[in-house]
Amino acid sequence: MPPDRRAPFLQACRNQPASRVPVWFMRQAGRSLPEYREVRGTGSILDAVRDPALATEITLQPVRRHGVDAAILYSDIVVPVAALGFGVEIHPGVGPVVAEPFRDEADLERLRPLDPEADCPYVQQTVRHLVDELGDVPLIGFAGAPFTVASYLVEGGPSRTLGKTKALMLGRPDLWQQLLDRLAGIAVASLRAQVLAGASAVQLFDSWAGTLSPTMYERHVMPASAKVFAGIADLDVPAIHFGVTTGELLPLMAEAGASVVGVDWRVPLDDARARLGPGVAVQGNLDPAICLAPWPAVEAAALEVLAANGGRPGHVFNLGHGVLPETDPDVLTRLVELVHGGEAPR
Amino acid sequence: MPPDRRAPFLQACRNQPASRVPVWFMRQAGRSLPEYREVRGTGSILDAVRDPALATEITLQPVRRHGVDAAILYSDIVVPVAALGFGVEIHPGVGPVVAEPFRDEADLERLRPLDPEADCPYVQQTVRHLVDELGDVPLIGFAGAPFTVASYLVEGGPSRTLGKTKALMLGRPDLWQQLLDRLAGIAVASLRAQVLAGASAVQLFDSWAGTLSPTMYERHVMPASAKVFAGIADLDVPAIHFGVTTGELLPLMAEAGASVVGVDWRVPLDDARARLGPGVAVQGNLDPAICLAPWPAVEAAALEVLAANGGRPGHVFNLGHGVLPETDPDVLTRLVELVHGGEAPR
Repeated sequence: MPPDRRAPFLQACRNQPASRVPVWFMRQAGRSLPEYREVRGTGSILDAVRDPALATEITLQPVRRHGVDAAILYSDIVVPVAALGFGVEIHPGVGPVVAEPFRDEADLERLRPLDPEADCPYVQQTVRHLVDELGDVPLIGFAGAPFTVASYLVEGGPSRTLGKTKALMLGRPDLWQQLLDRLAGIAVASLRAQVLAGASAVQLFDSWAGTLSPTMYERHVMPASAKVFAGIADLDVPAIHFGVTTGELLPLMAEAGASVVGVDWRVPLDDARARLGPGVAVQGNLDPAICLAPWPAVEAAALEVLAANGGRPGHVFNLGHGVLPETDPDVLTRLVELVHGGEAPR
Repeated sequence: MPPDRRAPFLQACRNQPASRVPVWFMRQAGRSLPEYREVRGTGSILDAVRDPALATEITLQPVRRHGVDAAILYSDIVVPVAALGFGVEIHPGVGPVVAEPFRDEADLERLRPLDPEADCPYVQQTVRHLVDELGDVPLIGFAGAPFTVASYLVEGGPSRTLGKTKALMLGRPDLWQQLLDRLAGIAVASLRAQVLAGASAVQLFDSWAGTLSPTMYERHVMPASAKVFAGIADLDVPAIHFGVTTGELLPLMAEAGASVVGVDWRVPLDDARARLGPGVAVQGNLDPAICLAPWPAVEAAALEVLAANGGRPGHVFNLGHGVLPETDPDVLTRLVELVHGGEAPR
């Protein structure tokens, strides 16, 4: 049985009144949890994702522990391009590393269309397991947005400046557009497969879109992201559009086709809602670093987030970016209790 | 002879009409220049800063090569705290590393007041050499803002999230304020010494302030930065206030006491000016990564920056952050020519 559409998370995503403010945390499944470190071992995250039993267990851990309102599939935004054989590995503490980065037309051939059942059946298998286990808790599927995935393929390794990516975008706009179109097609195929297997909502991670000026985003990135949202529109699931340092991009990120826009902690939610207009829900936006402070400071900051939204429908409480590995998981549990409207006595 | 107040850079900093749009580049003296790599050697930047003849030469190189409208002292924001013996080193490709990071009250004693003539006379000596050499070209002195310097002292090494810094700020607000007050005093002493030695303007680098929400910035950071500006107000030199991902902070950065606010490329200059009001000059804001693209794309983007300012007085053309090391220096020279109103034939 899929979750009821009246699940608080799905109601809020549809910008409708919910029985409580729903809450989940980006990277809620991961290094902050001792039970994660216990089951995860030392192998590559890509190997863990290819093991449906393990990926299912890791996805469920934060739901059991924190009582969050949504689960998010344990996976990575480079899983589809890795499954296509582009040669991507994820190095612990570094991130995606590409042995032969994307350089020219010939590299387009390394990005054929994704056939989820043939290329990454384990993803859909994990989704099916999860839907069986989760009951009323919605599962969020996800994909990397074309720009952010492209940035990993072009840079080849970590980069704070995305210099090679931007130089390709501006120097070879034709090639850039073909690259993003292929990645948009791959994201659509991946998201459709996750939803058809049972995911109740999706999030498009454009984590590094906020490194772009609004002009560059609108010209060179937004059209491909809009293709992703258009490609799943018929499935009628909420679609969250996420990035950081995106204060100037928020209206464009909604215009691309999202029903929910992620807001990082730099933009107070009342300002974000003013920029987005009344039809769009918001997700966020506690600074994840604040979770390292003593609880009274965390509590005060979380209450400020709620106050900035002012009780309007259409707010999914989250951090503005992923949980930091050094976070005490008890702080996350207390945050869930606080957002749900009553902190349990300690 | 100090530069004339009618130097285009100084006029623009004072929000007054200038004979041309002035231009300089953050990190214009540095790794993008072959003549820099030739003289610089492989020692620590802190050693180079302690050598007035070398620091003078490095500062002058981009003025000679590019014809920029201002020189900026070759130094580093951790020079004063290093001179006080806090135990800071700068590791190439990593940044400042602190052997014993700031943790508690006892560490305040490691930050006694700065006596520039005793602690770092080489800085003022370099400034005096430069003023002799530069003639009509103004010299910009600088300091690190209390928050950004504190972040290095607290984190101990590179951090994308500044988790320890924010946890200290919120968990020990009393200690945090004492730390920032000491660093404000150190910045004032350093800036005053540079101006009294002949610098015509100063820039306060709060490079990481944009990692903060407006609320946290206003409560925990802005008061100390305001003390820095107040502490040099009587010297009557233009004061530039710089950070990145500061779109939401721009009005507060002006309110802190700056005459010029640096704007990164995420915020179009017309939007920035609307947020700042008519009394404040702006500096920026070409994305430094764009300088890696072919020249026609660089030119188009630079012209868009100029168009967004719309010919208003009070615009210092710059990049939105420092020159990337892999930048072709000829691109910078062409940018200067372009901004000055006529690109020289190639």
